[in-house]
Amino acid sequence: MSVIVDFSIFPIGKEESVSKYASRAVKIIKESGLAHHISPMGTSIEGEWDEVMRVITRCMEDLKQDCGRLYMTMKVDCRAGVSGRMDKKINKVT
Amino acid sequence: MSVIVDFSIFPIGKEESVSKYASRAVKIIKESGLAHHISPMGTSIEGEWDEVMRVITRCMEDLKQDCGRLYMTMKVDCRAGVSGRMDKKINKVT
Amino acid sequence: MSVIVDFSIFPIGKEESVSKYASRAVKIIKESGLAHHISPMGTSIEGEWDEVMRVITRCMEDLKQDCGRLYMTMKVDCRAGVSGRMDKKINKVT
Amino acid sequence: MSVIVDFSIFPIGKEESVSKYASRAVKIIKESGLAHHISPMGTSIEGEWDEVMRVITRCMEDLKQDCGRLYMTMKVDCRAGVSGRMDKKINKVT
Repeated sequence: MSVIVDFSIFPIGKEESVSKYASRAVKIIKESGLAHHISPMGTSIEGEWDEVMRVITRCMEDLKQDCGRLYMTMKVDCRAGVSGRMDKKINKVT
Repeated sequence: MSVIVDFSIFPIGKEESVSKYASRAVKIIKESGLAHHISPMGTSIEGEWDEVMRVITRCMEDLKQDCGRLYMTMKVDCRAGVSGRMDKKINKVT
Repeated sequence: MSVIVDFSIFPIGKEESVSKYASRAVKIIKESGLAHHISPMGTSIEGEWDEVMRVITRCMEDLKQDCGRLYMTMKVDCRAGVSGRMDKKINKVT
Repeated sequence: MSVIVDFSIFPIGKEESVSKYASRAVKIIKESGLAHHISPMGTSIEGEWDEVMRVITRCMEDLKQDCGRLYMTMKVDCRAGVSGRMDKKINKVT
């Protein structure tokens, strides 16, 4: 099933600025080749459930190398029979 | 305190497509004049806590006129002494 | 409209353990007299939208006294014509 | 890495009451044998990342059989070197 996942990840217990960690996750998402949309509070990733979860797992594995505690949030929209929805969703509400 | 709030709102118990409801919320956010960023899974709004919450309350009041049940999610980033952060946050991770 | 809000709050840029901050929020929620349910990842609060938001604002005001950056998440379930739903919701799914 | 995941799942485009769908997910979580805590707005599940994600995938697969659109939210707390944290987390804030 094709999904869109809005994903955020950052460490707890590090500096107040977490952008250097978030940028490592963004780099992994970009390298995945999956469609994505970067927003100020997270990144939306579109693809098959398993492939999106593999990318998210890779982000977590990367950050946990030097972060003792990580916080992640996900909002998932799974819709049967539809793909390439990210841009359409924005167009339909604006 | 200046905040960035990633906000989603949609009805439960209506059609499978909720874009016509989401677009009413997006219209209210745009008319508020607050800085915002529309993404496939929600809209980030930046401003003082009270003014952002007033806009979100207005979205809820509008949709509850014809929706018996609403679901909303918010992710809030409150940071002292910084404003105009939405674009900077994206630039710092990309 | 009566709402149930699942609420989490913690600082970014402090220690890895954030329980001393979370416990200040839990104390404020308890003192509010609103129905609530404490879980490992957040607290559900039930009441009218305005009164729940007042309690959440109080938590934020309290923590921002000694935290430069706060992260909060909320999931909101607004349902017309129903109150006292927190226990019922658990009973209906278990 | 041991994680605690606060997880919610429900269909969009079905009835206003979604408890019959949520209860199917709760049943799958219970049968998994993983430690869990049911709250009014979601269920916290504790375990290794891969095993928790397998249970969540099972919930999604089950509901997508008769739901054209699903919405899920997750809040994830990953902390190195600690397990059996669910009850401790509640005790530390109350």
